[in-house]
Amino acid sequence: MKYNGQLLAELEFALKPIKVGVLGLGTVGGGTVNILKRNAAEIARRAGREIIITRASARDLQKPRICDTQDIQLTTDPLDIINDPDIDIIVETIGGAGTVKDMILTAIANGKHIVTANKSLIATHGNEIFAKASEQGVIVAFEAAVAGGIPIIKAIREGLSGNQIQWVAGIINGTGNFILTEMRDKGRDFADVLAEAQALGYAEADPTFDVEGIDAGHKLTILASIAFGIPLQFEKVYTEGITEIARIDVEYAEQLGYRIKHLGIARKTAEGIELRVHPTLIPERRLIANVNGVMNAVLVKGDAVGATLYYGAGAGAEPTGSSVVADVIDVVRALTSDPENRVPHLAFRADALADIPVLSAERIKTSYYLRLNAEDKPGVLADVTKILADHDISIEAIIQKEPPKDSTALPIIMLTQITLEQEMNAAIRAIEALPTVSGKVNRIRMETLG
Amino acid sequence: MKYNGQLLAELEFALKPIKVGVLGLGTVGGGTVNILKRNAAEIARRAGREIIITRASARDLQKPRICDTQDIQLTTDPLDIINDPDIDIIVETIGGAGTVKDMILTAIANGKHIVTANKSLIATHGNEIFAKASEQGVIVAFEAAVAGGIPIIKAIREGLSGNQIQWVAGIINGTGNFILTEMRDKGRDFADVLAEAQALGYAEADPTFDVEGIDAGHKLTILASIAFGIPLQFEKVYTEGITEIARIDVEYAEQLGYRIKHLGIARKTAEGIELRVHPTLIPERRLIANVNGVMNAVLVKGDAVGATLYYGAGAGAEPTGSSVVADVIDVVRALTSDPENRVPHLAFRADALADIPVLSAERIKTSYYLRLNAEDKPGVLADVTKILADHDISIEAIIQKEPPKDSTALPIIMLTQITLEQEMNAAIRAIEALPTVSGKVNRIRMETLG
Repeated sequence: MKYNGQLLAELEFALKPIKVGVLGLGTVGGGTVNILKRNAAEIARRAGREIIITRASARDLQKPRICDTQDIQLTTDPLDIINDPDIDIIVETIGGAGTVKDMILTAIANGKHIVTANKSLIATHGNEIFAKASEQGVIVAFEAAVAGGIPIIKAIREGLSGNQIQWVAGIINGTGNFILTEMRDKGRDFADVLAEAQALGYAEADPTFDVEGIDAGHKLTILASIAFGIPLQFEKVYTEGITEIARIDVEYAEQLGYRIKHLGIARKTAEGIELRVHPTLIPERRLIANVNGVMNAVLVKGDAVGATLYYGAGAGAEPTGSSVVADVIDVVRALTSDPENRVPHLAFRADALADIPVLSAERIKTSYYLRLNAEDKPGVLADVTKILADHDISIEAIIQKEPPKDSTALPIIMLTQITLEQEMNAAIRAIEALPTVSGKVNRIRMETLG
Repeated sequence: MKYNGQLLAELEFALKPIKVGVLGLGTVGGGTVNILKRNAAEIARRAGREIIITRASARDLQKPRICDTQDIQLTTDPLDIINDPDIDIIVETIGGAGTVKDMILTAIANGKHIVTANKSLIATHGNEIFAKASEQGVIVAFEAAVAGGIPIIKAIREGLSGNQIQWVAGIINGTGNFILTEMRDKGRDFADVLAEAQALGYAEADPTFDVEGIDAGHKLTILASIAFGIPLQFEKVYTEGITEIARIDVEYAEQLGYRIKHLGIARKTAEGIELRVHPTLIPERRLIANVNGVMNAVLVKGDAVGATLYYGAGAGAEPTGSSVVADVIDVVRALTSDPENRVPHLAFRADALADIPVLSAERIKTSYYLRLNAEDKPGVLADVTKILADHDISIEAIIQKEPPKDSTALPIIMLTQITLEQEMNAAIRAIEALPTVSGKVNRIRMETLG
């Protein structure tokens, strides 16, 4: 009798539709609703059961939506959904790391599985959230938090699981890439393109997160953790934005065979891990140098596989919704699995995370593009190159440009070999102190990504 | 007591190293051994337990190996391993679809999970193999069968599982891509580059599988099944190789802003599914047009995510081994899972595969690059364009080239709009019958891949 009862319970479970509650009905929430409705048949053919959104929350229920909310019970209070015993999976698309953190912890305490698109939440509170989730035996899935529709979390965590990952380098902020692409294609200035991006809705009214590299820093934090098996450490990411990139640097880079891209780079070295977001000169022949507009791409170098690249839309309702829905299906498949044998949240088992130091910015090693303005006098170049030599910095190329119409200062461009950042900082201070050099030395890091 | 006993059994299972037997110690087998040995610690941190190769088979035990076989019990008879009750997972890297099929079926009957790199086996016998595996509740994993180290099976089957896939287009044969890249970069002829590729070991002594598109056809068969949820149907793939591509076509394509790539294309249309492998003109600004040498790349278009691209090494010991090892880790994680809730072999559940017809070659719709040699007489162009118009074929562009030094025939290049292949075949027959046209009409299909 008991055996039959168990069988029946299992059968019922297998046939029962999975009930999803969505927190937030903005871009990503709306995209998720649209995909789960439109592709319901296709998804059931894959997952073996129906997945339906029964409840959703939104701050303002009167606001026009990009999705059809028929058959979805709406509320303004996310806790209504989090505390509903009928809901199996919570999809969180509210964003931000404030009150949302408490909501997620409550949902976990209630035994809900979580799918989230929230990069700042995971990057800043992920360690705590994953620990609580493991205690409760629930999954917190976050594919949509990095690079929108590109299944990059899955590729690194599962697809390359046989590799020691050596480095990850990605264009992981679409707004920044749109701005740099426009600057290059149309010879426009940063401020001008930013204003247009804001008008087009690509950039927020407050663009700080995008153009200062904070958004990319959140995503890089997550990529580095799953690549190297280290705890999430957003506070240790070096971030530099694209606001200082001048049109002239984009042009010079082009003439030298390079493109400037805003990259998030995580590299494992013998000394520790480099975590850095900054504009970067990349050889134009590299595939990632040709990723333009709002598109994202992530290069991953593994010791066995070599370099692999993943490209797609990094934002938008349905691309990001695509990752949310894939995570929901993964969670559904794992509902009957042994929690111990699931893919660990940070790719490596929580008890096997490594305590590898993250290097300070001064200890980064890279090569550099330098631009400075010098007086057109004999001896200037000798002074500059002597300073570089004193700091053990080898020069790959020096190019003198014609002075611009409105100036007598001679632009000098230098490309260096790989150098310790600390030495470069000291050299730049010394060069800027030369009486024959006017203004600041513009420095952009370079990577071959080979 | 029983409860404690059960706990102990579970604990023992959790701690027990997983024992893998490898069939074949050539390139892929050797690469797999090297990765599992070198990255053993990293892999244990991910999988939560040791994964060790305890047995391996090879035809000739005296042959020098790329891997260290110390601690591995060797045999010349794969059945020794297949019938060993101690082996949990069989890795098959022998290749070919003959005797290997029976080995795999025996291993499945013995309850072994299988990881294979064998594209021809899966493409031609996969339906039968997966059916038997499902009966036995075992997994047959085949990431390494398509595009080497790129986790493309996982990306489509799991990463894009919320999408209706619209089309897949890939450079999935490295040898062919190497030959086309050399032809373009160095202005060389097909036969000349093929001979070099054979000398370098990129191409087999019998290059038919590579240059005639059969290898790509095997891989496309697999990609189409997991993209659309249809049974494997290799026999319905239209395959055309690269042996007829002339240096002059590579040059003309270049002048028109295109690159010629050998693509495998699977597209779902209202009438049915197109499955085709052939040389293809692609706009040079597309990322995939810039994938060169032996590298592979697959573009996947989903209704929610849009176009995504996956790039990496398509062959070689460790890149392919990377996919084998990732599959082994996936299998280890799934050992305690409910077979009903695992990712289905062909992405969609076996009872939910769709019976969508595969279209014959005549029903393909695409645009075309045509090159023909005509006498330099008035009226020739009028005759040709009238034939095209009679077959409802719209012309996008016509370019007349100077006759080559040793000829009086005038090369005419035409680009058409999208056309039914059947109409194009009839038009070409009519054009070739014109007395003013000499020789054959060279036809290369074109895709925008937007």
